[in-house]
Order: sequence, then structure tokens, then C-alpha cells
Amino acid sequence: MELTAEWIAAFEQAVRNRDDDYILRITADMYPADISAILHELNSEDSKYVIQLLPPNVGADILSNLEPDIRKEFLQLFTAAEIAAIVEYMDSDDAVDLLNEQPVRMREEVMALLSEEQSNYIKDLLHYEPTCAGGLMATELVKANINWTVQRCIEEIRRQAENVEKIYSVYVVDDNDILIGRLPLKQIVIAKDYEPIKNLVIEDVIAVETYRDGEEVAALMQKYDLEAIPVVNVRGKLLGRITIDDIVDLIVEQADKDLQAVSGISEDIEEDDSVWKLTRARLPWLLIGMLGGILGARFIGIFERDLSLIPAMAFFIPLITATGGNVGIQSSTIVVQSLAEDSSPAVSIWQRLAKVMLVALLNGLVISMVVFAFNILIFNKILLAVVVSVALFSVVILASLMGTITPLILDRFGINPALASGPFITTANDLLGLAVYFLVARMIYAVAPL
Amino acid sequence: MELTAEWIAAFEQAVRNRDDDYILRITADMYPADISAILHELNSEDSKYVIQLLPPNVGADILSNLEPDIRKEFLQLFTAAEIAAIVEYMDSDDAVDLLNEQPVRMREEVMALLSEEQSNYIKDLLHYEPTCAGGLMATELVKANINWTVQRCIEEIRRQAENVEKIYSVYVVDDNDILIGRLPLKQIVIAKDYEPIKNLVIEDVIAVETYRDGEEVAALMQKYDLEAIPVVNVRGKLLGRITIDDIVDLIVEQADKDLQAVSGISEDIEEDDSVWKLTRARLPWLLIGMLGGILGARFIGIFERDLSLIPAMAFFIPLITATGGNVGIQSSTIVVQSLAEDSSPAVSIWQRLAKVMLVALLNGLVISMVVFAFNILIFNKILLAVVVSVALFSVVILASLMGTITPLILDRFGINPALASGPFITTANDLLGLAVYFLVARMIYAVAPL
Repeated sequence: MELTAEWIAAFEQAVRNRDDDYILRITADMYPADISAILHELNSEDSKYVIQLLPPNVGADILSNLEPDIRKEFLQLFTAAEIAAIVEYMDSDDAVDLLNEQPVRMREEVMALLSEEQSNYIKDLLHYEPTCAGGLMATELVKANINWTVQRCIEEIRRQAENVEKIYSVYVVDDNDILIGRLPLKQIVIAKDYEPIKNLVIEDVIAVETYRDGEEVAALMQKYDLEAIPVVNVRGKLLGRITIDDIVDLIVEQADKDLQAVSGISEDIEEDDSVWKLTRARLPWLLIGMLGGILGARFIGIFERDLSLIPAMAFFIPLITATGGNVGIQSSTIVVQSLAEDSSPAVSIWQRLAKVMLVALLNGLVISMVVFAFNILIFNKILLAVVVSVALFSVVILASLMGTITPLILDRFGINPALASGPFITTANDLLGLAVYFLVARMIYAVAPL
Repeated sequence: MELTAEWIAAFEQAVRNRDDDYILRITADMYPADISAILHELNSEDSKYVIQLLPPNVGADILSNLEPDIRKEFLQLFTAAEIAAIVEYMDSDDAVDLLNEQPVRMREEVMALLSEEQSNYIKDLLHYEPTCAGGLMATELVKANINWTVQRCIEEIRRQAENVEKIYSVYVVDDNDILIGRLPLKQIVIAKDYEPIKNLVIEDVIAVETYRDGEEVAALMQKYDLEAIPVVNVRGKLLGRITIDDIVDLIVEQADKDLQAVSGISEDIEEDDSVWKLTRARLPWLLIGMLGGILGARFIGIFERDLSLIPAMAFFIPLITATGGNVGIQSSTIVVQSLAEDSSPAVSIWQRLAKVMLVALLNGLVISMVVFAFNILIFNKILLAVVVSVALFSVVILASLMGTITPLILDRFGINPALASGPFITTANDLLGLAVYFLVARMIYAVAPL
């Protein structure tokens, strides 16, 4: 379905006119995710009207699919009772995300209004970090005791069918709820009813502890092609499971963040955000670049006399700074990507740097030689050509080092290393490049004056 | 399991010594994905030995998990018969990927050696583009005729259990194999055996045509939280299905590519690739940047006389070029990301540009005003401060425009728009910035000479 501007305008008009028949008829054939996409285009009041007009289980799905900041905005018009009526129908992981966006008092009020069953599902999840396995998991799952038969297991699936939307495996536990293994639904379908689960269970099950980082969970699920992963506490007790749809969202979000970090955008923004939000997300990095530029101006100012003697030195400033920036951004991106995947065997920092240096040497040699040739051909100033090429070579080496080390340091301190690939590294390398260029010039012209 | 360098060295030694017991014992408890990770560290000959020592179904899983370029290298040592023996056990989608990497002649030879059943699975897939739905799908799936009962459906699942590793839903078709709907495994477990499928089928099934682009499939599966999606031809005939694990790989790969494009890396590389490959991936963009730098040098050369009169003009060259680069990369990233998600309603190019201009105006105003203040405070040259700020403002506006339009044009021509965010846009904006700066200077100094 294509969401045209006309379609949205017609829908918006229907909402304003309280044309319930039209709204119900047109949303009847739609998936909740599509209705969410429409609500992104409406204001909070109209959205509330639509959500409350639809059955609460549909409203729950719609709210789960909304983006957090928009959901938060919409819900400001809702009372605690109205929120509770919908949260009652949400999966525990989505409910927790929604509640964590609310002020503490609202959260408590909603919790108090939920059924005991639903509040039990949610309660244990509220204290986990949203980005760790505990914060990503849902408590809804089907578990079976190791001493059951297949028949008993099917009854449990039937009992939970309403509650657990997607069942891939039944998790098998002992009397203390310690995870022992899993039983894929496929096996249950083809097994005999009287068969003991003990004989069928796959004990070799990949699980994660609650404290594991979301990115780690994503890497595991990708590596082993899992559609769901059980979550246990440190003693191995089964607490919940994470399904691949939430991990796909996490991967896409993280990729967006990395790309934005490299590009110098400091908030999660989209093209249809407000002008003010877009400006706010971009300005900080531009200002950092600007400060770097002013520092650079002051630095070049020191060499004003050299410049008035050899104005041609100014010609190569953009070449030097651009090369430093490009080399730095390349180096840091390679490190960022290798940090993201942990499949490669542990490499010592020294091996890493040795290799970076080798690549930098090769790149530096090629570039400075090509530039030297161009310089002789075009400008025919041998001494300046030497200065430029020596500086270029040094800048490539130094920018590679900076670009490699900075993300490693950020990562060590728990900061997203992709931040190092953005305007920060470019600005730093601009300054580095200028320093190298003018110092090399001073040295070479001191030995072989004009 | 942590892959240490020592562990790998010990394993490699065992392979060299043909210590079959050790290899079999140590790999017995490992997942194929882990064995693949180890083989990435071995040479082709040793890898071949390990793959052939293990049962062919394990070998098939290992080969499926290897990275394409490494797999291709390994298989150069295999004969057609040796490859066929393993391909026999692969899922059709993985088998097709592997065969498509081989020279035509080898591909034909392997196909001729496969069992009729397996070659039938594969044959129809070979002609699809690897990145479209047809190229991503596997032909293994469980389908049921609409006139069957649940009991008959379970028998079909039992018959196919070996062949189809993961079953989420049974796809329901009519007598002509036209897709009618799906029946989740959960429903089959809890249904009565004698129940007709007709009564249970969910007709509202999201499917894709074979020609749909992989990224489109990924967006659909993410939006609707699907773990598998059926693939049909234009007449609605069921041909295969795509599972989420392949889509996760695709998403991660695409994200890596985007990040590398923005950073000016032209091949898919990892930190542990060879120095030569790393250099080769980086050098092209560095050379483009270098050409830009030399062009810039020639351009500034035109203004040599102005520079020797006002050497301070050189101070602000890095500020101008850096700002242009930063603004350009930000703008193009925002466009690239909004192109990647198709959920937002159609926005006309003019609305888009109007908004970009507004953001650029705001950013440009703030930056040029701040720089003006700094310039007055630090350098105390009013005319130069005017020149720099007017140039900066113009550069922000122009770089925003360039950064927005370039990826849109690339996308229109089917080129990855992320390429526009990398060194290309930075280099172009460096030149743009220089042109604006020196032209503004000429104009202002012409009106108000020194």
C-alpha cells in the first residue's frame, strides 16, 4: 500500500469529522504496522481518537510499532487508566519499553491498574537496562518440564497460544526452572503424543545471560541463524526469550546510529523531522569543525611571514587537510567494523598497529609520489614539491595512527567508537596535517633556503 | 568459545599432522558456524582436509557459513565430484550462491553430478539475480493443498522434516500451486487432526514476487516482524521462501557497505584482510581526494597575487573546506537514510529541497556569526572577517544542496547513494568552498579595497 499525501489528508479529515464508519472500514484490512505509519503523520489528538476507536489489542500492536518519541508525545493525552487498558494487551517487552518512557508516577499508576497476570509479566523486566538482554527479552514463552510427555506439552501450548504470539521452540526446564534444552515445534508436530520429552529434547541450546549487551545477542543470533534465544540468569534459570524481530530492529537502529556518527549527526533524526530538530542534530558537529578551523587559522597565522615569502605554500593546504581527513576516516571505519564483529580471533594491539602502518606506508608512498610528479609537471617548483610530498607522506602515516587508536580508546571507555570516525577525526586530522605541513616546510627551507 | 591465536595454532598443527582423532574430537561439540570461523584462519589445503574429514552434511553447513571470497579460494582445490558430494547436502539457496561463484564449466559439471532431486531444487534458482527475492529464496518449504486435513498436513511435515530445517508455517496452495494462505505451525499443533485446512488457513499472507529487490524484502520483513516470507511469481504461484536469517545477513552487509561508502573504502574489507587488499580498497578514494587537492592547488594558484597581498586569506582555507565537507556529508547521509526506508509518504523533491535550505540557512547563520565574532576578537581584521563569514554562509548553503541532490541523482541511476556521502562529496565540496571563498574575496575587496 502506498501512503500518498492525498490518502493521508482524506484519512485525517475523516478523523476530524469523527467518521467512525470510514475509519473502521479502512483500517479493518490493514496491519497494525501500517496504521502506525499513518499515525506518524497525524497529531496527538487525532491519533488518540483512532487508537481508542479500534479494539484494545489492535491499539496495543499499533503503540508497539510507533517510534518511541512519537509514542511518548501521543500518550501525554492519555490518562493512566486509558494507558493501562491498552498495555494490558501488549507483549511484556513492548509494555516495558512504553512504561519506561513514562514519568515515574504515571508508570506506577498504570502498573497499579493492570491485571495481576499482566503486571507479573512486566514487573520483573522493569529494572533491566533497555539495551541488554534482560531489557530486550519478553517473559511470554512456552516452557515444559523435562518430565512431561509430548501430549502434556501440546496442552501447555494450547493454554498459552493466545498469550505467546510466536512459538518456535518449547523451552525445557527442570523442577527449578533451570533451562535444560529446547524442543522445536517441528519435532512436537511429528512426535508421538505419549513420547517423553526427555527422549526428544535438544540439550545443546544457545542461551544468553540477562546482562549481555544487545549487540552481543545480535551477533550470536546472526552467527547461529537463530529466530529466538532464551535468556537466563547467572544460575541458568529461564527468565524470558528474545525474538529475532526485535534484534532486526536493533541492528537497523545501530547501523543508522553508526552512519550518523560517521557523518556528524548527533541525534537520531529522519528527513521528515522538524527543521529545528534537524538543525540541532547537525550544529554541534559543525561547531566543532568550526572551532578546529579557527584553531587552524590561528596556527597558520604563526607562519604568516613564510606565506608572504612563498604564497604557493597556501596552494596545498586543502590537499594536505583533505588527505589527512580521508585517511583518518578510512582507518577508523575499519576499526569500528572489526570491533562490531567479534568473530575474528584476538589480535594484539601491536599486530594491529603494525598492519595499519604497513597499509599507511603503501598508501602514503603512492600518493606522495603521484603528487610529486604532478607538482614537477604543473608547478615546476622542486623544493615545494619535496615539502608537499614529505608532508603528505607523514600526514598519511599519522592520520592512520590517529584513526586507528581513537576508536579503540573510545571503545575501551564504553563510548560508541563510530563517533571517532566522524567530524571529530576529520577536524583533528586537519590540524595535524597543517602542523606537519608547516613544520616540514620550516625544516626543509631551513636546510635549503629559497 | 574464544578463538585464541594459540588455540588456532594447535588446531592447525593437528591438521598438518593429519591427527584425525584430535580434529574429530574437538569439532564434535562445535557448531558449523564456529568451524567456519576457524577455517577462515587456515590455508585452503588444510581447510579442504578438515571439510572432507567431517561428514558431508557438516561440510555443507560449514561451506554455507564461509565468506564468499574465502569459499571460492578454498574450492579451487576441489574437483567437481568433491564439490557435488557436499552441495548434495546444502539448502538450495546456499547451493546456488556457491555454484554462482564457480566458473561456468565447473558449475555445469557439479550440476551433472548431483542427484535428480537436489538438481531440481537448484536448477530453477540459478538464473535469478543474487540480490533479488528470487536469488535469496530457498525452494525447500512445506506446502499443503487447501483441500487437505490437518492430519495430511502433519504427514507432509514428517515427510519433509529432514529436508526443511526450519518450519514456521505451512504454505497453503490450490491445485495449481497458487499461494492461498498460510497455516502457522502453532495452529497445527493445537488443531484437531481431522479438521480441514480450509477452516484454519490464514489467507492474509504477505508474499513477495521473485523480482523484488532484497532491500525491499528486508524492509517488509522488518516492518511486519516476519521470520519467513513466501516468494511467488507474477501469477501468484508459490516458488520458494526467504527466511529471516538470510535477511539479517543482508541487512548487516548493506550497513557495512554504506558505512564503507561514506568512509571512502571501495571494497568489502575486514581488518584481517591482507595488506594488499586493504591498500587496494583505500587507494582509489585517496587518489580522488588527491586529484581534488591538486585541482584545488591550481585553483588557488590563480589567486597567488591576492594571497601575497593578503596572506591572512590563507589562514581560513581549512575552515572553509572543512565546513563544506562536514555539511555535505551530513546532508547526503540524511538523504541516504531516508531513501533506505520507504515508510514515509511520498515527498516531492521541491518540498525536500525547501526544508534542506531552511536547515542550511539556520546552520549557516549560526556558524558564520560565531566565526565573525571570533574573527573580530582574535584577528581584528574587519574586512577579512566579512569575507570569511559571507563565504562560510554561502558554502553551507551550496554544500547542503550538493549533498542533497547528489545521492538523489545516484539513486535514480541505480547506484548506491551512500557513495555520494564519502570522499566524493567531500572533495567536490572542498573545491566548491575554495571557489566561493576566493570569488567572494575578489568581489568584496573590489568594492572595499585594502
